[in-house]
Amino acid sequence: MRLTLLGTADARQVPVYGCQCPACSAALLDPRLRRLPCSALIECDDQRWLIDSGLTDLTERFPPRSLSGILQTHYHADHAQGLLHLRWGQGLVIPVHGPVDPEGLSDLYKHPGILDFSQPFSAFEARQFGALRVTALPLVHSKPTLGYLLEGEGRRIAYLTDTVGLPDATQHYLQRQPLDLLVLDCSMPPQPQAPRNHNDLSLALHTIEELQPGSAVLTHIGHTLDAWLMEHRHELPERVVVARDGMVL
Amino acid sequence: MRLTLLGTADARQVPVYGCQCPACSAALLDPRLRRLPCSALIECDDQRWLIDSGLTDLTERFPPRSLSGILQTHYHADHAQGLLHLRWGQGLVIPVHGPVDPEGLSDLYKHPGILDFSQPFSAFEARQFGALRVTALPLVHSKPTLGYLLEGEGRRIAYLTDTVGLPDATQHYLQRQPLDLLVLDCSMPPQPQAPRNHNDLSLALHTIEELQPGSAVLTHIGHTLDAWLMEHRHELPERVVVARDGMVL
Repeated sequence: MRLTLLGTADARQVPVYGCQCPACSAALLDPRLRRLPCSALIECDDQRWLIDSGLTDLTERFPPRSLSGILQTHYHADHAQGLLHLRWGQGLVIPVHGPVDPEGLSDLYKHPGILDFSQPFSAFEARQFGALRVTALPLVHSKPTLGYLLEGEGRRIAYLTDTVGLPDATQHYLQRQPLDLLVLDCSMPPQPQAPRNHNDLSLALHTIEELQPGSAVLTHIGHTLDAWLMEHRHELPERVVVARDGMVL
Repeated sequence: MRLTLLGTADARQVPVYGCQCPACSAALLDPRLRRLPCSALIECDDQRWLIDSGLTDLTERFPPRSLSGILQTHYHADHAQGLLHLRWGQGLVIPVHGPVDPEGLSDLYKHPGILDFSQPFSAFEARQFGALRVTALPLVHSKPTLGYLLEGEGRRIAYLTDTVGLPDATQHYLQRQPLDLLVLDCSMPPQPQAPRNHNDLSLALHTIEELQPGSAVLTHIGHTLDAWLMEHRHELPERVVVARDGMVL
């Protein structure tokens, strides 16, 4: 089972348009420091699922019939706007499994095109796709949002964006069996006040402590966290690393 | 005054994802035949306005402060989705002038970021931006939609997508003074039934006949029209040409 982080940014991406902070200035100069919309690809035996669809070049990246389908965490634009063009394809159907969200994004439900939104996940529902088992985990965000537990080929990975902390039920569910890998929302450096909608580093590290995964990767990184990490990277605990676009886990 | 066609496709773009028609097959092989979301750039003296924002790489194409603003014809995703990321910039404000549309696109009005939607156009309202005069022309479409009359440096250009025919008032307005150039929606080859929401070639040629511009450029081209044109291009009247991405007028 192979997880590739296609994008690792918060909604603003890195560099932020017009920003001259040290992180954005560095990313303007070095494409390796850029961050695209937060999304990933999970591959397990013959299964190949895209997690979130905020990248706007999906028709270029994924030839027709190369994806088994799409696991949507939620329908904010930076996680779903690639669907706005992908839907107009023809000659194939792409299942999009995500949370129950009556609003979705824009007119996607009204004009779904080749996208099949008919099978949203219930909380803690598990689905078996060939060798890949996917369980939907409720998260805490400003829209209905799911994380995913991905199990297959002897590994157990949780992919949890966008969230601020975890609901008790999700935390207890994940504590029952150890994770090999936790990929977790961490949008901001430590904040003086409790953050809303997304983890800051303090809350992300607290969640990692609670779940005790084999290793943890921080994603959904904002430019202020990237700037903070330029000074503080050595302060991260062992077995906690910061995501980069293209990282294979 | 210089008009550059940045994209010339209908909502599906060319090639259509998964399509194997002659036009899509040719466009897969030859990037010059591809069509991106329908949009343009009008430049006049020190003014530089983007017409529609469906391109999703606006932050790459237009460095901060390089645009005077955006003229929005309407808020369908293929004409507006580039705004969903552009809004998260900082340190500048970009005016977006378009039709009054209470819905806009997705949550753009709720979270406008650096975009200023506060000055929508009224029907036939004219605004002077330095040497460029812009008049908003009501069109016929499935959402509130405006075309634009662009006047400056001795030229008179009308840019009219998305529309099926023209409202009488707009037609009469444009007939009062001759156009040097008409850029017009023509999404489909001639249809057996009257088309909805977009011009077919028959209706586009009828409109050109009514307005008698110096020349006419067909844009918002769908793949079925591109395929039809492979056989019939020589049948277009004199002074009527088919747009290409990157065309400078």
